[in-house]
Amino acid sequence: MKRHLISAADLSRDDALLILDTADELARISDRSIKKLPTLRGRTVVNLFFEDSTRTRISFEAAAKRLSADVINFSAKGSSVSKGESLKDTALTLEAMGADAVVIRHGASGAPHRLAGWVRGSVVNAGDGTHEHPTQALLDAFTMRRRLGSLEGRRVTIVGDILHSRVARSNVLLLSTLGAEVTLVAPPTLLPVSVGSWPCEVSYDLDSMLPKSDVVMMLRVQRERMNAAFFPTEREYSRRYGLDRDRAAKLDDGVIVMHPGPMNRGMEIAAEVADSPRSTIVEQVANGVTTRMAVLYLLLGGADLGGEDQ
Amino acid sequence: MKRHLISAADLSRDDALLILDTADELARISDRSIKKLPTLRGRTVVNLFFEDSTRTRISFEAAAKRLSADVINFSAKGSSVSKGESLKDTALTLEAMGADAVVIRHGASGAPHRLAGWVRGSVVNAGDGTHEHPTQALLDAFTMRRRLGSLEGRRVTIVGDILHSRVARSNVLLLSTLGAEVTLVAPPTLLPVSVGSWPCEVSYDLDSMLPKSDVVMMLRVQRERMNAAFFPTEREYSRRYGLDRDRAAKLDDGVIVMHPGPMNRGMEIAAEVADSPRSTIVEQVANGVTTRMAVLYLLLGGADLGGEDQ
Amino acid sequence: MKRHLISAADLSRDDALLILDTADELARISDRSIKKLPTLRGRTVVNLFFEDSTRTRISFEAAAKRLSADVINFSAKGSSVSKGESLKDTALTLEAMGADAVVIRHGASGAPHRLAGWVRGSVVNAGDGTHEHPTQALLDAFTMRRRLGSLEGRRVTIVGDILHSRVARSNVLLLSTLGAEVTLVAPPTLLPVSVGSWPCEVSYDLDSMLPKSDVVMMLRVQRERMNAAFFPTEREYSRRYGLDRDRAAKLDDGVIVMHPGPMNRGMEIAAEVADSPRSTIVEQVANGVTTRMAVLYLLLGGADLGGEDQ
Repeated sequence: MKRHLISAADLSRDDALLILDTADELARISDRSIKKLPTLRGRTVVNLFFEDSTRTRISFEAAAKRLSADVINFSAKGSSVSKGESLKDTALTLEAMGADAVVIRHGASGAPHRLAGWVRGSVVNAGDGTHEHPTQALLDAFTMRRRLGSLEGRRVTIVGDILHSRVARSNVLLLSTLGAEVTLVAPPTLLPVSVGSWPCEVSYDLDSMLPKSDVVMMLRVQRERMNAAFFPTEREYSRRYGLDRDRAAKLDDGVIVMHPGPMNRGMEIAAEVADSPRSTIVEQVANGVTTRMAVLYLLLGGADLGGEDQ
Repeated sequence: MKRHLISAADLSRDDALLILDTADELARISDRSIKKLPTLRGRTVVNLFFEDSTRTRISFEAAAKRLSADVINFSAKGSSVSKGESLKDTALTLEAMGADAVVIRHGASGAPHRLAGWVRGSVVNAGDGTHEHPTQALLDAFTMRRRLGSLEGRRVTIVGDILHSRVARSNVLLLSTLGAEVTLVAPPTLLPVSVGSWPCEVSYDLDSMLPKSDVVMMLRVQRERMNAAFFPTEREYSRRYGLDRDRAAKLDDGVIVMHPGPMNRGMEIAAEVADSPRSTIVEQVANGVTTRMAVLYLLLGGADLGGEDQ
Repeated sequence: MKRHLISAADLSRDDALLILDTADELARISDRSIKKLPTLRGRTVVNLFFEDSTRTRISFEAAAKRLSADVINFSAKGSSVSKGESLKDTALTLEAMGADAVVIRHGASGAPHRLAGWVRGSVVNAGDGTHEHPTQALLDAFTMRRRLGSLEGRRVTIVGDILHSRVARSNVLLLSTLGAEVTLVAPPTLLPVSVGSWPCEVSYDLDSMLPKSDVVMMLRVQRERMNAAFFPTEREYSRRYGLDRDRAAKLDDGVIVMHPGPMNRGMEIAAEVADSPRSTIVEQVANGVTTRMAVLYLLLGGADLGGEDQ
């Protein structure tokens, strides 16, 4: 495995399976009520967040702390970054402070890649612009595998604003590596121009795809981007691309519904669908901590698993 | 004891005494220079603060850390809450992340109660709107008991803006449970309509109550609410309801003066009264950590007390 | 050694050498890959920051955590300070909460001194107004000593906005104590009136000083203060007082270039000078953590060094 996790494309099939298997093992340990492992004691994980994302930040924070790492939260708001410090100088600062891993969320696509050129520690991309969010893809794959078994040949339909979604891009790349068949469903205005080169199919018609899906993943609608006349109204979006009660009722038994959160209940997903047994939304959050534990553990080369913190 | 601490009314007399006795025991351990106990190692306490309250947050943070719990601070400012996420989704996130306890401060009365319906972990109300602040009442009771012995039959006078005070409400409920006799002193405009049903007396005349008090608890004046023509001036408020030097001089020996902080020195309480030996204000802060340790310890069912962290 | 570290002037020569020697010992331990020491387990360090300074805050946070102390970050923004609480009440709060050390950054010169009068724990000045920043001076001295050996008789030239620089003042005081010879280089408008009483020389001519320097320390230009017509343009400042490539090329081998960060690359220092082998800028950041570990260790009277955390 590489030293960094910048893109889902960095992961070979073996890498990805190693992470998922490690997460499985960590989940088993956690089920035995062992909540804290000593494997990363003395290591420092820095959460370097240039954008607010409390959910992702605390997921990484919880993951690192359960492995006994020290966590330092570095919110770039109000930091010397606002005094004109470059990302490079910030990187050198973190490097000099002995960060073993830097978890970075940044508004600019490519920032984690640049950071990785400047530090000896491991860099984990926690979302860069509209580019990638590889640990989200890993936790999604982990969630699917736990519900459905192997991903080989599974049909995954991803629905919504693909254009602005780093979640979609990372999922397409990882799911393809793991042998799943992905179809993106979106209005043409919410698909990136480059989508033709992605390892997936594209459809504009949700209803025709639902009967062919093992997994339906709904993306968050960025309401602030709906002004741009992509659609007449939110109502219209919801009617054509929302997973409402009627659509969900037609899904086969065993089909799962996913959402990376936070949801707009009633918009891209109906509240009762989000809360139904086929929804994995709460599991995804829990699996996020487990999967990020696996990533940090493998990148930082922690000691053997299985011991209990005492 | 219940799994949550939402209201002082949830505590039976036995519950309350158990908390106070546990806090006593923790204070004794701390006096032996044992500052950190291993009892909650591996447990995660989330501070979920929808309103700024640094003092309360760090009091809970210090309490949890002294019990060796991991603490994750979740400030709702700049979180996905601002992207429209509901309290319920936030709750499910925390739940999925494995929070053993959620300490919540929220602007809306009743939010902790709703949260408790959605999580398996324990919910501790750290202040909800103008409703309740039960750990403040517990630390106040603990402080009184340390100074005065049993609370049975003690006369406690609470002075100031009762209308907007969650501290007053929680204190009235808990002190009543513990057998104290509470009188509220406030101008009629700063008393809630419902006060007639509270287990306490009401008076509009501070000077007549002081000779009958074992405890005088001054509440913080919310200056921003004084605009509302409750009184001609701050000066007038201070003259009629402030605990100035002259009033304090008439108190019997042994009468204690309390304030939940932060104070307006010179407004509801004179600086020299706040710093006098009968003032418990600094003790209240220290006792806040100890009392919150007791609450977390009991709610999370920690291991035996008395061991030293090693 | 005193209980607090408020000013570099508080440190005798023996005190300063003890801190530097302790930092050396800590660096040696860290080189043996022991990243965490148990010496301050159970102690609480509070970072009390009334001004944003993420770099300094996380340097202290990392230092305290490597010594196994619990760290509580208290940002005064949005705290009860904004409700009118005085510094004194904040101090009493921290005191009551059992802070063993308070690291304070404050916009007002003298605030750490006042704080030290109110708490039993140790106070460490992490920058007060334009007054002092003693741990910066210590880490700078530590960096010089590692590069140059003893500071006795070394010639240190400090260049830039001395008037607003707490870094310059603390460095002059400490370097003088350690036997170095300091010259300040700045335009007359950026020198304080009191500089005549400082234990150092003053020059207005950078080029004449460079051949006589063992150390050249560039200070950050506060661009927002350049409006005040101290100079026609930033370009003019850079031309006369910037360490550009040509000036750096004339320095003797072995002369080191320092900067407290964050830099304005291209303004007071050229990017290639900042990244050259004679630059200590990255080392200074790393040494900041080590030096602050030494300060906390000595102030809090930790147990013997040398043990490994287990």
